[in-house]
Amino acid sequence: MDVFRFVSLPCEYEIGLGIPVKGKLLKQHTIPPRIEAAKDVRSLTESMRYIGFQGRMLAAVVDVWAKMLKREYNVIFLGLAGAMVPAGMRRMISHLIKRRMIDVLVSTGANLYHDTFEALGGHHYMGSAHANDVQLRRNRIDRIYDVFADEDKFYKLDLTIQKKFAQMLIDNYPYSSREILIELGKMLSEKAREKDSIVLSAYDTGVPIFCPAIGDSSLGFSIMFANRAGRSIRVDGLKDVHESSLITQRAPRTGVIYIGGGVPKNFIQQTAVVASYQTRHDKSHDSAIQITTDMPMWGGLSGCTFEEAQSWGKIGPRAKMAVCYCDATIALPIVANALNQRFPKIRRNIPEFTWKDSGLELNFHMEKL
Amino acid sequence: MDVFRFVSLPCEYEIGLGIPVKGKLLKQHTIPPRIEAAKDVRSLTESMRYIGFQGRMLAAVVDVWAKMLKREYNVIFLGLAGAMVPAGMRRMISHLIKRRMIDVLVSTGANLYHDTFEALGGHHYMGSAHANDVQLRRNRIDRIYDVFADEDKFYKLDLTIQKKFAQMLIDNYPYSSREILIELGKMLSEKAREKDSIVLSAYDTGVPIFCPAIGDSSLGFSIMFANRAGRSIRVDGLKDVHESSLITQRAPRTGVIYIGGGVPKNFIQQTAVVASYQTRHDKSHDSAIQITTDMPMWGGLSGCTFEEAQSWGKIGPRAKMAVCYCDATIALPIVANALNQRFPKIRRNIPEFTWKDSGLELNFHMEKL
Amino acid sequence: MDVFRFVSLPCEYEIGLGIPVKGKLLKQHTIPPRIEAAKDVRSLTESMRYIGFQGRMLAAVVDVWAKMLKREYNVIFLGLAGAMVPAGMRRMISHLIKRRMIDVLVSTGANLYHDTFEALGGHHYMGSAHANDVQLRRNRIDRIYDVFADEDKFYKLDLTIQKKFAQMLIDNYPYSSREILIELGKMLSEKAREKDSIVLSAYDTGVPIFCPAIGDSSLGFSIMFANRAGRSIRVDGLKDVHESSLITQRAPRTGVIYIGGGVPKNFIQQTAVVASYQTRHDKSHDSAIQITTDMPMWGGLSGCTFEEAQSWGKIGPRAKMAVCYCDATIALPIVANALNQRFPKIRRNIPEFTWKDSGLELNFHMEKL
Amino acid sequence: MDVFRFVSLPCEYEIGLGIPVKGKLLKQHTIPPRIEAAKDVRSLTESMRYIGFQGRMLAAVVDVWAKMLKREYNVIFLGLAGAMVPAGMRRMISHLIKRRMIDVLVSTGANLYHDTFEALGGHHYMGSAHANDVQLRRNRIDRIYDVFADEDKFYKLDLTIQKKFAQMLIDNYPYSSREILIELGKMLSEKAREKDSIVLSAYDTGVPIFCPAIGDSSLGFSIMFANRAGRSIRVDGLKDVHESSLITQRAPRTGVIYIGGGVPKNFIQQTAVVASYQTRHDKSHDSAIQITTDMPMWGGLSGCTFEEAQSWGKIGPRAKMAVCYCDATIALPIVANALNQRFPKIRRNIPEFTWKDSGLELNFHMEKL
Repeated sequence: MDVFRFVSLPCEYEIGLGIPVKGKLLKQHTIPPRIEAAKDVRSLTESMRYIGFQGRMLAAVVDVWAKMLKREYNVIFLGLAGAMVPAGMRRMISHLIKRRMIDVLVSTGANLYHDTFEALGGHHYMGSAHANDVQLRRNRIDRIYDVFADEDKFYKLDLTIQKKFAQMLIDNYPYSSREILIELGKMLSEKAREKDSIVLSAYDTGVPIFCPAIGDSSLGFSIMFANRAGRSIRVDGLKDVHESSLITQRAPRTGVIYIGGGVPKNFIQQTAVVASYQTRHDKSHDSAIQITTDMPMWGGLSGCTFEEAQSWGKIGPRAKMAVCYCDATIALPIVANALNQRFPKIRRNIPEFTWKDSGLELNFHMEKL
Repeated sequence: MDVFRFVSLPCEYEIGLGIPVKGKLLKQHTIPPRIEAAKDVRSLTESMRYIGFQGRMLAAVVDVWAKMLKREYNVIFLGLAGAMVPAGMRRMISHLIKRRMIDVLVSTGANLYHDTFEALGGHHYMGSAHANDVQLRRNRIDRIYDVFADEDKFYKLDLTIQKKFAQMLIDNYPYSSREILIELGKMLSEKAREKDSIVLSAYDTGVPIFCPAIGDSSLGFSIMFANRAGRSIRVDGLKDVHESSLITQRAPRTGVIYIGGGVPKNFIQQTAVVASYQTRHDKSHDSAIQITTDMPMWGGLSGCTFEEAQSWGKIGPRAKMAVCYCDATIALPIVANALNQRFPKIRRNIPEFTWKDSGLELNFHMEKL
Repeated sequence: MDVFRFVSLPCEYEIGLGIPVKGKLLKQHTIPPRIEAAKDVRSLTESMRYIGFQGRMLAAVVDVWAKMLKREYNVIFLGLAGAMVPAGMRRMISHLIKRRMIDVLVSTGANLYHDTFEALGGHHYMGSAHANDVQLRRNRIDRIYDVFADEDKFYKLDLTIQKKFAQMLIDNYPYSSREILIELGKMLSEKAREKDSIVLSAYDTGVPIFCPAIGDSSLGFSIMFANRAGRSIRVDGLKDVHESSLITQRAPRTGVIYIGGGVPKNFIQQTAVVASYQTRHDKSHDSAIQITTDMPMWGGLSGCTFEEAQSWGKIGPRAKMAVCYCDATIALPIVANALNQRFPKIRRNIPEFTWKDSGLELNFHMEKL
Repeated sequence: MDVFRFVSLPCEYEIGLGIPVKGKLLKQHTIPPRIEAAKDVRSLTESMRYIGFQGRMLAAVVDVWAKMLKREYNVIFLGLAGAMVPAGMRRMISHLIKRRMIDVLVSTGANLYHDTFEALGGHHYMGSAHANDVQLRRNRIDRIYDVFADEDKFYKLDLTIQKKFAQMLIDNYPYSSREILIELGKMLSEKAREKDSIVLSAYDTGVPIFCPAIGDSSLGFSIMFANRAGRSIRVDGLKDVHESSLITQRAPRTGVIYIGGGVPKNFIQQTAVVASYQTRHDKSHDSAIQITTDMPMWGGLSGCTFEEAQSWGKIGPRAKMAVCYCDATIALPIVANALNQRFPKIRRNIPEFTWKDSGLELNFHMEKL
């Protein structure tokens, strides 16, 4: 196959070259939105359906997500990467959990750590991307692009995790990260000052959270410090794979939403591969959304297209898909608000997860939210 | 701390290392937005003021633009690059012109050509970025990412420009692109079926449009075809420089807004350099906005920061600046709607341009819009 | 057509679904390069042919360029955008011109201005992208990402252009930018201290240079200052379109190389459209290379794929194409050195351009370089 | 002026505004490289030292890496993310390990899986980024951008891991990923057909490999399948944190090299934080390199600058740093070859890692390579 060669319109168009297909291809013209049309965020996104480029894709994200919510017996995964909590996205994610617009969360450790930090009353601060970082260091201020944080306050949380949270965990038990995060939710249910917490909302609503690289965060290393001080707490990475793929195995269908890429994306994609291996049926994801600033050209999993994922059987051949190339701190507020305005009430078949030993029972119940 | 300010920690912090500055640096914490807060697009952007990353910058774009509108005797330039009209942004730009949220437009030729095309009743179509382009070619369909267009219809417009529009122009006169575009506006004022046209709105409201690389578009080459058929129409690139820089020379202050980079950005930036040379005063732009997907790392003018522009004296040392890295088809609908909801009425000192020979008289009059 | 739908392998594969095509698709395995294999830059690029991602594309750029050089009666255009001269690429471009690895140059004004500046003995300086630009301004130092320049020296060149160079030009003649740049080459042939100049090399070898937005640069505004002081120099943008498209009309075939996008890319692409209109034959470019950091997702012409260009008839349906997403200051040194090592001698049919009135005579002569 | 230094103009310049500092800032002019200068890859990179933009940064990467190699008692970490092995980078990484240009590897699971696959005789194939993925799926071909692979062959490796490799592991032992990967190296030392394997080279030379998200890969899920079939293999994510941070604790100094970001980058960065907490000394990394296509503007850890990392104490305040924004499949071949040509022989103090229980003994011995 010629490396430089491009591919084709469906065969019907190929076969009869003489047939005028222009009419088939030029069916719906674009509709340049009038400014007055956007009364609220929902109508803003609706006015963007018939434009071009990433604006159209943003509208498509809302539409595909809406379809996910209407789809029966659908389990919706959210993969969350990037410093979304320091950037102020905590309450939105929490809202999506509470209103069950997502059913399973896979996150980096940092987002869960920063969420816990804010839940316990901590703050991130308005900073500048142009600060002199050596001087920030001297002041024990940590920078996350244009957000600042007080390292001394982080240090207190680290101690809390190491000294108090670790006491809630038992030695030599192979924890999945999901199990660890239930314990963290339990702690927050007692201590949180701020209730719009991701970890706490998930705990309250029974939404499982996986953090497959939990060691790779302050959350992980603070627990590790307890081990250095004599404990033997274990977080078993393989158990995460087992549990998460069980969900996809048991679910009649699955939808996936990726904010950023990284481990959360790959990990959720992988559940389809594992579930298909195990069941010998096609358990590819049924609908898929990605909001990313990464690009396919670099060949990495974070930026790869859903089409590429179809070749692996991670995404189904007829899946509804929408990829929007945009910073999530722009796209998520729009999408979350648009969904909220579109569904002031939702009535969904909500999945309920019952974990026994290492088995999973998955039931659905209808809920109005 | 002002979010929009370039913050290198002031020298005082250097000198007295013992002084606790943490409190000064951690003044305003971030405020994670609640979903319920965003009633409309305006409140959406306001809820994003105290978050991080590009979401914050989008809110900053609205705030800086609002300041431009409130600033007295301010001439606001808009630089427009990228296929904004095929992507459906025509009515928004037209709205910004009619409500005088901008005063001067510098555009690529393509946007003006496609605007003329839609004004005369033409359409762009919903397409796919994955189409087989060789087959599109066979059907005489042109693709602009995920937008399709009917080449035969473009061809008719080309003929109209060559045969009819060219008749409105005189031979051997050194036109600036501004003068050409007034003639185009005149033609549209008679023939346009669709009134929300950029060229027409500018003509109606007296907003000058410059197209410094007019030859580099279907608009340009269609006029050139008239020359090949015996005419001697001239578009003098130097006259554009002269006229545009006169505006910055005469204006008490200038604000600049860049959608994309390219020639429009550089051309508007350059007016500050020319005006400063000529007047021997600092005529750097007073406030500046950029919405771009280009990056500073590649060293080009399109992606360069406004800080870099300050070293050249193009942007003032105390200018209000906001750069948002985002596809304009996402950012512009948000920003334009937010501004519209924020200013249901505007009362501005509107600049009026009177061109005599090659001189410019600039007057301001108060207008309610 | 479904917007979200992806397209297909050639029909043969469609028709017989039972046919095992895996073997056809998995023909050539990748060959991970050994480090020892890369003796020189040529062998480095050859060792990258059978890898993946942009590394493979870089090797493809060299291979497609080599094919262009071997192709008979081929006119090779180079489009040059971005601050390539300040970044140190001057001698490489000059080398490509002298050895006739390109035949026509289309450039931004800035590159030609900075080239002239260095040819006359000026320098750019090693700077930092993290400098405080307000302080640079106070020192009259201009910054281009991590390159500094002495504004006072630029000012001297501006005066030279305004006072001396303008004297070489006549009033009221509609110059194309090509004609202006021949005059500039003439000036440099007398005054240049540094001979590896782009403008000078092009002058010496008869390679035409177009600068379609010449007004949009210090070169342009300095000539304009002469007009403000009483001269009437005219640069006619339409004449550029005419002349450049004549080349594509007359040439048996054309190859195009784009370093960055912007006006140079669109302008060269457009010559194919104009030439096809005029000749009623397919005059699309026969081979095409792009080195860019822009992306197709934003819908702009700079970042668009050559496939998109095929839908417009700008690039031929069977063209050899290679797009490499990479900063040109990395890719160009590799590609230029690899080509040089691959062709220590070239024997090419070199196009010779004879301009009469506004007509063009195009002849080829065999040359060893 | 040191190119690699973060330059905010020192305070002295602020204070005395009258002092002419231009001379201090414009010390070293750029040197546009001649094409003839690049005899080999080393001289290519050396010719790029005095240019601008990312080309200069590529030269800086080689220079900073060379300094790392010359630095005494330095432990060099490599973080490896992205599909580098499918893209053909396996032998280069293997070479860097064998010649001890790196001392510790932190990788995604996918790279180690694909390395094992190729070591056992498997192949990746030249494909196309434009293929129809649904049809690839039907043929059981997996696509990684423009690389194809035979899924049936992957399946065999999965079975080998599940059935045979898992037998080398014991139940209920809390493995670190490092320990797992030693066992994998052992298996490859017997079975590998291709000796230039990353896992095997690391095994042979005693270079530890960490894979903190090992569950997030075919390697991980294949071991998990053994558990589903009755085994109780545990991979303890906390142990990885413990062991990796011990290295940074014990090492007199550390250098870090990141190809891509993701978990490998954060994980290595984090060792400095943990080591500093534990030792109450500044254990920030002493020198740092990053080759990435991610950007700081999105606020994520993958794309963040080393300056930002300095605010956290991950990178030292006086660290030598070089960040090059470039696809690694372009940059790595250049850098690895340039280093190899610059150091035909290396004499380095090589760290030797002796792990006892969960403690680490770190010794250095001089080696010629």
